This record gives sequence, structure tokens and C-alpha cells, in this order.
Amino acid sequence: MTEFRKLTLNSSKNSLHSPRTMSTKNIGIGMAGFGTVGTGVWETIQRNGSLISNRAKGAFSLSIIKAAVRDITKKRIDDAPADLFTTDWQEVVRHPEVDIVVELIGGTTTAFDIVAEAIKLKKPVVTGNKALLAERGKELFALSKQYDTPIHFEAAVAGGIPVIKAVQDSYVGNRIETMSGIINGTSNYILERMTNAGLDYLEALKEAQDLGYAEADPALDVNGWDAAHKAILLATLAYGFSVDPEQVYVRGIERVRTIDIDFATKLGYAVKLLSVVRQHSDGSVELRTQPSFIAKSHILSSVNGVFNAVAVRGDASGEALFYGRGAGKEPTASSVVADLVEAAYTFVHTAGHRGFLPYSESGQLRPIEETETSYYVRFAVTDRPGVIAEIANILANDGIGISGTHSPVDPEDPDKDFVDMVFLLHKCPFGKLQETLKKCEALDCVTEEPVVFRIEKLATS
Amino acid sequence: MTEFRKLTLNSSKNSLHSPRTMSTKNIGIGMAGFGTVGTGVWETIQRNGSLISNRAKGAFSLSIIKAAVRDITKKRIDDAPADLFTTDWQEVVRHPEVDIVVELIGGTTTAFDIVAEAIKLKKPVVTGNKALLAERGKELFALSKQYDTPIHFEAAVAGGIPVIKAVQDSYVGNRIETMSGIINGTSNYILERMTNAGLDYLEALKEAQDLGYAEADPALDVNGWDAAHKAILLATLAYGFSVDPEQVYVRGIERVRTIDIDFATKLGYAVKLLSVVRQHSDGSVELRTQPSFIAKSHILSSVNGVFNAVAVRGDASGEALFYGRGAGKEPTASSVVADLVEAAYTFVHTAGHRGFLPYSESGQLRPIEETETSYYVRFAVTDRPGVIAEIANILANDGIGISGTHSPVDPEDPDKDFVDMVFLLHKCPFGKLQETLKKCEALDCVTEEPVVFRIEKLATS
Repeated sequence: MTEFRKLTLNSSKNSLHSPRTMSTKNIGIGMAGFGTVGTGVWETIQRNGSLISNRAKGAFSLSIIKAAVRDITKKRIDDAPADLFTTDWQEVVRHPEVDIVVELIGGTTTAFDIVAEAIKLKKPVVTGNKALLAERGKELFALSKQYDTPIHFEAAVAGGIPVIKAVQDSYVGNRIETMSGIINGTSNYILERMTNAGLDYLEALKEAQDLGYAEADPALDVNGWDAAHKAILLATLAYGFSVDPEQVYVRGIERVRTIDIDFATKLGYAVKLLSVVRQHSDGSVELRTQPSFIAKSHILSSVNGVFNAVAVRGDASGEALFYGRGAGKEPTASSVVADLVEAAYTFVHTAGHRGFLPYSESGQLRPIEETETSYYVRFAVTDRPGVIAEIANILANDGIGISGTHSPVDPEDPDKDFVDMVFLLHKCPFGKLQETLKKCEALDCVTEEPVVFRIEKLATS
Repeated sequence: MTEFRKLTLNSSKNSLHSPRTMSTKNIGIGMAGFGTVGTGVWETIQRNGSLISNRAKGAFSLSIIKAAVRDITKKRIDDAPADLFTTDWQEVVRHPEVDIVVELIGGTTTAFDIVAEAIKLKKPVVTGNKALLAERGKELFALSKQYDTPIHFEAAVAGGIPVIKAVQDSYVGNRIETMSGIINGTSNYILERMTNAGLDYLEALKEAQDLGYAEADPALDVNGWDAAHKAILLATLAYGFSVDPEQVYVRGIERVRTIDIDFATKLGYAVKLLSVVRQHSDGSVELRTQPSFIAKSHILSSVNGVFNAVAVRGDASGEALFYGRGAGKEPTASSVVADLVEAAYTFVHTAGHRGFLPYSESGQLRPIEETETSYYVRFAVTDRPGVIAEIANILANDGIGISGTHSPVDPEDPDKDFVDMVFLLHKCPFGKLQETLKKCEALDCVTEEPVVFRIEKLATS
């Protein structure tokens, strides 16, 4: 993996520093804030910049030109140009080569000024600041309209999960009936640890803080307001009006106790901090965040740890679930970069259509023979002494490990001939397995082509 | 709900038949095929056309102008204009008011001609035809490039789940490491019924056919090729090159037997028809579809019935899961309409930015007091005779039903005073509950503000 990344990094660097084609526009990015997520954005563009340009059919490339930080002496990345950082955000926003401004400083005061100033300069803004848009979105969207300059905010809700684009674009033909979200990872982690490890609230909170999931001041996480800000944005997206946060009902998890968790478990529920957005038949929108009991039969109840999920129900789409990492350096950077690409297209919309086109000359399928998993193989056999040994010998001679074997026995007639033999086999290349199975098939006790199932080792979340 | 839909339908009709503003462009849609999904597209635009225009800030409205069908006498919708239908697809594609062509006839021959012809006329195409793009995408994308005219195909993979847009746009900054998909609902239904109802393969297949999930000729579903076509499209999207279907390894579920399911269950696995797309460190792409064992601990194993899901892992985003209805009239129509809106923007890209802006004047929050669920309420109490009765009386007088009550008892000291009383309460407006709880709080045996959890009744999938 390391080797591949290195290769990509090199080619990416080349594409950033040398012109691709005459028509490739270099889009300059200015960053306000360069902490964890900002560093993730830098690294993602370094690593995948060339891939991004290819996917955009060479219409543009992305470069970070300037970044405003509080402490200019702090080491953030290895290969930063000497003049990348400044302490003056105005220098970033007004920089002549900065086409798009990324706001990642958080808060609702300086961040507001930065976003407003960028929009007035007609520079599209990408932000992950849910508090800013939930509290002061009304003013900022008015500016966005007045100056005909977009604000993109995929990173503001549920980190790396593209739920903003789903609600805004993919479900544009739907009246959104409900959105139910587990959208604060810290709260979800604490509730899960109270449930599965029997910790009380303060123990679980301390654990979350020790692991870096909760801030030193975890107030906005555990009092429900971080989730509520995201729910406000989802409601605004789905129903089109600005929501006054003061009218929103919000309760956090501070008063959840072990007794509540135990009771819920006994009744078949999971306790989650749930944000609910629902439109009623009179058009009014229910919007609330609070600890909730969710039936264990619903897929939302299995969203554990710091993961986030939003269940969206549209009048045409039916129910869908979006699940993934709701925070963290790289997932959030992934969403910022997606918004940067969307914003970049506004600069090159005359350079061809935005629909998908194949963009790679070099792609190739891996021969199926070289793919590897563990396997479950069922043989149809004629029962006679030595069947298992014969098959096992062939497997052994070819170096394929057996982790288990079984012939189903009829409980009412244990002496009845068996007709099926099952083998569980260790990981090996599929081509090798196929060759070996051909030899097995040639045995006179094997009556048809063996049936193979892959045992997939999926990453567990 | 019916009343609301009727209202929306009316206002939608108005917007379709009267000009909105001077700058609203009417986008004409031509349909090739008007079966189940086509009818769903018509109904969705009728019902939500006004909403769609509002979300596009009035930049355009959508109208279906002309539709090619095989049998012009067949009744399809109630309110079709007399001249809507024709048997000649050329009439649709060449119609001067048709700006965008929707191809929903299926197959890879006439469908190819229709898509090719539309592109040559520089009319964007929206299609749900996975076989067409998987088998002949190379030729069609070459035309798309040559004529600078996009092909949109969200409806071709996983029905109402926006996984195409996610991979193409939301994860544009990621190297996609793996995509693992359960993307054939019929196969998934059959496997689930074999697992949970103990049916054998033929019984489960017959049941799926009786329920309308499987076609009379279910070959493409159960032989894995429907899923494989979708996986080919996902691979092409993620890695940018056209895949030759003949090089793709595909096995269906025809040879899965009860013994395999039982064995998998015993070992802690679920059996699924899984499509795997994975890029290796040498750049080559593993692409295969076959019956697979998936650990029950992985969220994909809980995708049941006709639902679809795709787990996507990007190098920045981490793992995300997209889950929802993979087929059916309305979910597929939802994706077609999203693509129509995306295509429509290509006609109005000078009419303002595409970023989100609030678009509704009339939106309002529902007062939290009017929202209803069931509740779990925990009271902190001083244990003395009559505590339960006093609280229960207040609840009864206010007409709030109790479905259960409980005071946790210390097993080692059952006579110890209890300090917590839990009530499970029937559904009522939250405002009513709050008033009643105020009265309870005033009881001298209640020592602090009661803690309330919502019991959320989420739609089960």
C-alpha cells in the first residue's frame, strides 16, 4: 500500500507543479484554519490531486495557495512552501490567486467575517462549520444570493458521509418525509460504552476524552447542540427555510443513567441521541434532538462507536440509510475536497459537460485467478471409505490448508450414506483453488463440479 | 397524507402549465419506454414538480413532452395529454421541444440506437439501463465525449440509492479502495428466505416470483449478471476505464443449497450474493460477483429482503454504507428525476450558482408541544407507600396511558428503599406530557425534574 501511495504522491506533485494541458485551469485555494482537518485537506490534494484532475477530464487542478493560522511557527506539514502560512486571514481571502476559500476555524464571529468577505469578493466558500451556518446561515445565504456565489458545506454534517449532496441533489425530486440521524459520534460512543461495557456516564465520558473522541470541553457534544446544529442544516436543505435555533428543542445525554440503558435493553431497544426531522401533512416541520429508544430491529440501532448515520425517507425514494465516519481528519477532508471540486467546476463550466466519462488509459482488471479469499467448498460425493482422505490428500499435496470439514448426518439415520462433503479452506489464490478442484472433480467419488463460496473478510467497522 | 399529496399535485400542475417567471426555462423531456418506472417518473414530476422548481430557485421546470411505447392503446396514467404517446422513438428523440431523453426500454440494441441518436443531437440522456452501459458503455461514452453531451445513470445501480453520485462526486477526492455491494434484490430475497424461512432454492424463487420481485424469466437476477452489470459500472466510475464484461467473473445463486445456508449460519456468517470491486496496490482492479459468506458482525450482513446496500471504502473517507431500496417504481423514478434535474442545469448554468439557497417563504417549525411519540420517563423519588399511586393518578387524570411501570430492586436487599421509578407511557403530545410531568414534579415524593426519553417508532425496513 505504501509503495502505491508513494507513486500516486509523486505523480500528483508533478501534475500540481507542471501545466497539464493548455486548457487545464489551476484553481487556487485559500485556507482559513489549518488544524487537523486542514492538514487532511492538504494531504488529500497532495496524494490524490492527479486522480482528481483526471476525473475532471483535465479541466482543472487544485492547489492550496495560502493558509491563515494563529501560530505561524507551528509545524503542520512536511513540505509546506515557505510563504504558505500567514496570521492574517484577509491576506488569504484577498489573495489574487485564491479562487475558493475554505473556512475551517470554527466559531461564529471571525468565521462569519471570513465567509462574508469571500462571498463579497465572489469567491465560492467551502466550510465545515455547522454552528456558523445553523446560527447565522440566514445572513450568509442572503449574501450568497446577492453576490451569486455559493457556500458548500458537505463537511458540516456527518463528516465523510455525503448526506448533504444526497438530500440536496439526489433526492431533489422527493418530498422528504423524515430524516432520523445519529450525528454526534461522541454521544454515540458514550451511550454504546454505557450499554456494552456497563460504564456509568462519567466513566464513559472520561474514556471518550482519553481516546480523543470528546473535546476537553465536551459541552456541545453531550448537551446535544452539535447534533442539533447538523439537524438544523438538514431541515433547511430539505424544506428550504432558515430555522431559528432558539425554537429548536434540544436535550443532550448528560442525564442518561445506567438504569435507563438497562431498561431499554430489557425492552429490546437501543438508547441513542437521535435527531428527528419530519414534515407533517400540514407542512410544518418537526425538529428535535434528544435521547431516544430505538427498536433493535431497526438498522439505526446497530450504528455503534463514533460512527454516524442518517436515515432519509422520501416520498419516492423510500427509506435509505447513509452510514460512515462522522468526524475525523481524513473523512472530513474527503468532504471538503468534494466541495472544492464542485466549486472548481463553476470556474470551468464551459470546458465540457460534467457527466461521467472514462478517464483512465491504464486501468486493468486483476485476473480472477490472482484474487484471494478463504473458501467454503461443497462436494457432491458417493459415500465410501476414503472419500474424505482422497479429497484431503489432493488439497494437502497442492498446499491448500483445511480449516474444517463436515459431512451432514441425518440425525434419524446416522448410518445413511452422505452425499455432501463440505470443506472450509484457508486463503489461497482462486486460480490455484480451481486447479486443485479440477483434480478433485476427477475422483470417481466426486459426482459433480464442486460449489464454491467466497468467505469475504470485510473490514469491520 | 392523501390530502397533502392532492394539494401538492394541484400546485405542481399549475406550475407546469403556467409560466412561473420570465427567467424560468421549461425543460422538455422525451421518454423512450413508459412502463413501471416511466409511470413513476411522470407521477413524481406531477406531484413534486413545483417543489423541484423551487429547489432550483425557479431556474427551470420539467415537463414530459413525448413518450415512445410499444402499445399505444394501453392505459398507463390518468391525465395523459392525447398526443403524449407514440410508437416511434425517433419522434421522441427528434421532437424540437425535447431537451433531454430518458431511456427506459431496457435491452442493448434499440436502447443503444436511442441513446446514440440523442447524443448526436446533443440531447443529454438519462438511463436506468445497466446492461446497456455495462455491455456497450465504451461506444456510448466515446459518443458522449465526441458530442460533449452527458449520459446520466444513477437509476442503473441500486435504484433509489444515490451511490453513483456518491462515488462520482462525493468521493472524487478519494482513491476508492473497495466497494462491496448487495445489489440484486431478488437474489437477496431468495437467500434470506432460504435462511430465515428454511425454504429451499426453488421454493424461495417461486415465492419471489409470486410476489413480483423476480421476473417470469429470472435468469439475469439469479445468474448474477444483473449484479455484475452494476458492479462493472461502479468499477468504471471509480477507476475510470471501460471494463470488458467477458473478463468479469460472475456466479449466481442457482447452486446455493439449504446445507450451505445452515453451515454458514452455524459458523456465524450470512450468505449473500456479493459484488466485490477492489483496487490492489499494483493498480489492478479485482471485480467479481458470487455467493459469499459475510460475518454477521458486519453491517452488510443485516441487509435483508429486496434491499440493496453498497459499502464504499475510500482512502480518505474511510468506510461508508449506502442502503435503501434497490428497485421498484418510485425509488428508481427518484433517481431518474435527480438525473433530469442535473441534466436540466446544463441548460441554465448562466442563471445563477448551483449552491444551496433557502427557497421557501412559508416553512415553519412544528411547535415541539405538538409532536407525539411514546415515552420512557424516569422519576427520582423518595420511597414511601403510595408513590406509584400518586404519580399514576396524575397521569390517569390527564388521560396519559401507562404501558408499564417499574422500580429497580436491589437483588441483595429487596427491602432497600428505591430511588428511581420508571414509567412507559403511551403516545401523546409532548406539550401535554410536559404539563402532566410538572404536576408530578410538584409531588413532595418526587425529588427532581423527571428524565424523558422518546420511544421512536421508526419505519422498519
